[in-house]
Amino acid sequence: MQPIQHFASDNYAGVCPEALAAFVAANAGHAPAYGEDEWTRKVSDRLRELFETDCDVYFVFNGTAANSLALASLCQSYHSVVCHELAHVETDECGGPEFFSNGSKLLPAHGAQGKLTPASVLEVISRRSDIHYPKPRVVTLTQSTEVGTVYRPAEVAAISACAREHGLRVHMDGARFANAVASLGVAPAEITWKVGVDVLCFGGTKMGLPVGEAVVFFDRRLSEDFAYRCKQSGQLASKMRFLSAPWLGILEDEVWLKHARHANAMAQRLASGLMQVPGARLMFPVESNGVFCELPPAVLDGLRARGWRFYTFIGAGGARFMCGWDTLPASVDALLADVRALAG
Amino acid sequence: MQPIQHFASDNYAGVCPEALAAFVAANAGHAPAYGEDEWTRKVSDRLRELFETDCDVYFVFNGTAANSLALASLCQSYHSVVCHELAHVETDECGGPEFFSNGSKLLPAHGAQGKLTPASVLEVISRRSDIHYPKPRVVTLTQSTEVGTVYRPAEVAAISACAREHGLRVHMDGARFANAVASLGVAPAEITWKVGVDVLCFGGTKMGLPVGEAVVFFDRRLSEDFAYRCKQSGQLASKMRFLSAPWLGILEDEVWLKHARHANAMAQRLASGLMQVPGARLMFPVESNGVFCELPPAVLDGLRARGWRFYTFIGAGGARFMCGWDTLPASVDALLADVRALAG
Amino acid sequence: MQPIQHFASDNYAGVCPEALAAFVAANAGHAPAYGEDEWTRKVSDRLRELFETDCDVYFVFNGTAANSLALASLCQSYHSVVCHELAHVETDECGGPEFFSNGSKLLPAHGAQGKLTPASVLEVISRRSDIHYPKPRVVTLTQSTEVGTVYRPAEVAAISACAREHGLRVHMDGARFANAVASLGVAPAEITWKVGVDVLCFGGTKMGLPVGEAVVFFDRRLSEDFAYRCKQSGQLASKMRFLSAPWLGILEDEVWLKHARHANAMAQRLASGLMQVPGARLMFPVESNGVFCELPPAVLDGLRARGWRFYTFIGAGGARFMCGWDTLPASVDALLADVRALAG
Amino acid sequence: MQPIQHFASDNYAGVCPEALAAFVAANAGHAPAYGEDEWTRKVSDRLRELFETDCDVYFVFNGTAANSLALASLCQSYHSVVCHELAHVETDECGGPEFFSNGSKLLPAHGAQGKLTPASVLEVISRRSDIHYPKPRVVTLTQSTEVGTVYRPAEVAAISACAREHGLRVHMDGARFANAVASLGVAPAEITWKVGVDVLCFGGTKMGLPVGEAVVFFDRRLSEDFAYRCKQSGQLASKMRFLSAPWLGILEDEVWLKHARHANAMAQRLASGLMQVPGARLMFPVESNGVFCELPPAVLDGLRARGWRFYTFIGAGGARFMCGWDTLPASVDALLADVRALAG
Repeated sequence: MQPIQHFASDNYAGVCPEALAAFVAANAGHAPAYGEDEWTRKVSDRLRELFETDCDVYFVFNGTAANSLALASLCQSYHSVVCHELAHVETDECGGPEFFSNGSKLLPAHGAQGKLTPASVLEVISRRSDIHYPKPRVVTLTQSTEVGTVYRPAEVAAISACAREHGLRVHMDGARFANAVASLGVAPAEITWKVGVDVLCFGGTKMGLPVGEAVVFFDRRLSEDFAYRCKQSGQLASKMRFLSAPWLGILEDEVWLKHARHANAMAQRLASGLMQVPGARLMFPVESNGVFCELPPAVLDGLRARGWRFYTFIGAGGARFMCGWDTLPASVDALLADVRALAG
Repeated sequence: MQPIQHFASDNYAGVCPEALAAFVAANAGHAPAYGEDEWTRKVSDRLRELFETDCDVYFVFNGTAANSLALASLCQSYHSVVCHELAHVETDECGGPEFFSNGSKLLPAHGAQGKLTPASVLEVISRRSDIHYPKPRVVTLTQSTEVGTVYRPAEVAAISACAREHGLRVHMDGARFANAVASLGVAPAEITWKVGVDVLCFGGTKMGLPVGEAVVFFDRRLSEDFAYRCKQSGQLASKMRFLSAPWLGILEDEVWLKHARHANAMAQRLASGLMQVPGARLMFPVESNGVFCELPPAVLDGLRARGWRFYTFIGAGGARFMCGWDTLPASVDALLADVRALAG
Repeated sequence: MQPIQHFASDNYAGVCPEALAAFVAANAGHAPAYGEDEWTRKVSDRLRELFETDCDVYFVFNGTAANSLALASLCQSYHSVVCHELAHVETDECGGPEFFSNGSKLLPAHGAQGKLTPASVLEVISRRSDIHYPKPRVVTLTQSTEVGTVYRPAEVAAISACAREHGLRVHMDGARFANAVASLGVAPAEITWKVGVDVLCFGGTKMGLPVGEAVVFFDRRLSEDFAYRCKQSGQLASKMRFLSAPWLGILEDEVWLKHARHANAMAQRLASGLMQVPGARLMFPVESNGVFCELPPAVLDGLRARGWRFYTFIGAGGARFMCGWDTLPASVDALLADVRALAG
Repeated sequence: MQPIQHFASDNYAGVCPEALAAFVAANAGHAPAYGEDEWTRKVSDRLRELFETDCDVYFVFNGTAANSLALASLCQSYHSVVCHELAHVETDECGGPEFFSNGSKLLPAHGAQGKLTPASVLEVISRRSDIHYPKPRVVTLTQSTEVGTVYRPAEVAAISACAREHGLRVHMDGARFANAVASLGVAPAEITWKVGVDVLCFGGTKMGLPVGEAVVFFDRRLSEDFAYRCKQSGQLASKMRFLSAPWLGILEDEVWLKHARHANAMAQRLASGLMQVPGARLMFPVESNGVFCELPPAVLDGLRARGWRFYTFIGAGGARFMCGWDTLPASVDALLADVRALAG
């Protein structure tokens, strides 16, 4: 029997019911275009409440754009951005940040468990200080990280302090921010502006929206003319309500957190199961909705032959299994059953 | 009583029922991301059938991006694009084409009724031929035009022939392509590749979709690596099915044409009514879904006071009234009643 | 007999003796690269003395780069620059400003005698204030203008006041700044920072240098990281002394002004002669080193047949004659003799 | 006694006598601008003779521009360039290649002795083939390399064959091309187009010119509209003769090779001396004009204290000593004497 759910990416999932309901509800008559509608205003206010601060909020179409535009607003073309070597902006945006900024260089840093540290940032920004190398201006953190780990507030605060001391701004790629908040059990403010984050790209798509991310400027001086930047780069939706209204659905009653907790729980269920399998080895602590596991090649091949989709990760023996808001326990169990059967 | 529909823009309308149904239907379980899903494949095939040729199809988020990416794929930064001086790419994209192409210059040309002619194109591209001025490489036509007129097939053919003769490619900004096809009563092929159009940006949003346009390459050599271009510039949707599936809904049973015909008919109804009003003067032939009309300033002020939204156009005395797929005859009649009352 | 001097452009001239001597003198042994040499330091100080203020000075290779880099430092890609419709940045840089800024749009304004006025600037920046059109951020003036006229200090001051009031910065394209200063008989400070100019591109090439222009920031906050910008864009000379030292030669003893006065005088000599010719009509007041004159087509053809090089200007009947630091009275007289012979 | 020559960089040297003579000789009367002069034509022809093929030649101001423009002409923004991790384009152009190409990513590869190999290229281009990562389109080689080694013709041929097989073009950064040719004792054609190089950036500055590099397209189809590209990016000299004429001086009688051989010989002299010093270790074979040597920190500090300038290289213990066309044997001997004294 073919699997009906996959673990390739949390963007294989569709729209969650709450977002869909809000989307449909927003389809009522005429509304001013380009964000002048009531839904967009309302969601922006809700996000300000959620973050407990008077931040600036912009909705753009996807994560490539959100991160690239945010970074471009912090940099000139001759500046550089320190990122973890596994960061999505470095590995999976096809040069998007360089394109939007007209040439800012990404400076990959090492770091255990997918995380930067003040030391790893310092190592990178201390290498050069001459004009023949782009001047570091931003540190970007991914929360949750690309390997499913999560920065603690104190870790972010330490990196921010280091950044501040050296004249760098702090950007957070929050494609899976919800999973991190759910994992940490903190208020969103505690893991963002209160620990020095200047701009957050708050991912909507992986939380169950059809399309769209929110760019949240905690330091409002940094968002000057950002609406123009969005417009020019093809990121201003005319029928903006269909980007913004779905957020209403998930911000209500902490739906977004509920979904994120569920995805995280499915990852735990999967990890627990995998730990029982001979030859399986978790590659990173499972702290959000992703499970990274080494399995014998024959097992991985067998899973693929049975129709399972997942990504290989760092070499042929590593697999990435992502859980989403809609991952069913039965799907996890079916995957585990196949793993066990193949490994047995 | 406040109006419940407006004539400011056809993007004030929501999602048409057929598109919404397809959107909801697509929300079924897991689907591969980034366009590898069945909906996207199916819609692409349907567009190839519609255009009766083996064209390349890409879905992007909005019109700014569609036009800018298409032009960037035809140009290098030191090339230029001939456009009508009223073209959206020149007047309303906040420099989007220049941004995506890294500097290609738009060369505005004159032309009656919002249309370019071979003569107006020639005038612009003959001015200079030295390396101190960007080399013309593309002509872009807007169909329907920004003033609601429509190019006949022979008009496009004549411009394309002129373009071809001088080494230029032909791009069509079809934000309101549906209204033009409905107006002309021709097959889509007759007004595009058969008359020399290389790339069409086929507008979805104004036809009743929530988000998204199709970039259609009739000359497939021009689309080499276009998917990379989309990805890098933040125009590759991860949950692509929600961009593509709604097209399925409107391509079925010629729904798109039915909606476009309706919008055009509402424009005719409005124009007919306005022609009866003393002091009103239509500025352009009403050939698609827009009505451009000079009215006494007092009338325009009065309409605004009564809550109507519309754009001023070329000076304080001109008004642009756009009709959409959802414009009700009653809304047109209510607007006309107010115009008459104010002009009486 | 073929002419040995031409009136096509003041960049047909070679290197003036004073600049050449300084160039050769700088070729002594080793010197640190990239501007860390003594010549560059010395010339920068001399320019600060010349402008009587603590300005920031950078040397770049040519005028396209100087203007484009200066404008890019004042703009983001979604901003716009108001310029005269005849400005070199608009007509002769092949899209350079758009390239360096990654898309800033130039907004051409009208203005008699090649000059902007507060009214013409206002007209352009008042057209639009929505995010669908690039936000004006800079006014650029050309001094001397492209038609050989010169802005008076009060004219610049009025434009600067208007710019300041509307949040715009003021840039001066001074490819022929020397000729303007010579013509006005004012101190350089009087026509730049004292009347509101933020950044001046001080042309060296047309004053008799082999290569290179100086970008002078009077508002030093605007030059933050400008050295990085130069480096990244290929405008940082490794053997910088050969760009900077020649300036020493012409700044000494007001050589630059002496040469500029000479060029201006040659233009006056030419204009005076032309005014005696039947059928000749000066198109603009001759206030610097260019003479723009309408002449019968047969005369212009005849001049070309006799080997004279000059540019046509605004239609076939207009001619541009530029005088340089090296233009000989005999060359002017020979040209005039041929004009008279042909017109006779 | 302070040193009068340094070993920091071969761009500390001035203009060689032959280039200076040609520069001065070119300063004779008027010449058409922007490369329409006789010197530029003549030098271009001489370079075609030198390379024994009908190549296209362009002169630009410096190496950042030459390499960045050449790469941009081979790439679109979403493509990538494979380079050695020590390549100047990666480490010392402040993001120039990314800026000129509007975002092309550099993909650093490992390789012993500063050289790429087919295997190292393959390793990089085989990592990814999805649209989320920039598509490799160019391999760039540095000849001589950044560590003073030199690619043999067969090595270049092998890399070119690999590149060709995978759809990549081959670019050669020849900032020190002369030193490589002198070292190899081959005809320039043998190490460029005959072994698959598409574009060469032939460095002039380090050969003894005041300013300027030549971009040589062996595959002329790749240079389409390259003159526009130069113009737009501020790399078209108005008084072009002063960039081109100095090449005449050094192309005559193989002056360029004579100078390069001298610089290489000085490096050998230095290396031979250093090998006699206890605690010194050559880091790379000395095959061109650079000597990379590990020395005790106290020795390096001592050299600096005595006024010697040189670069540290890969850690505090490595030193880079560059010899130029003008390096005197006495300077080498003085440096060696100080090294010996300090190490003794």
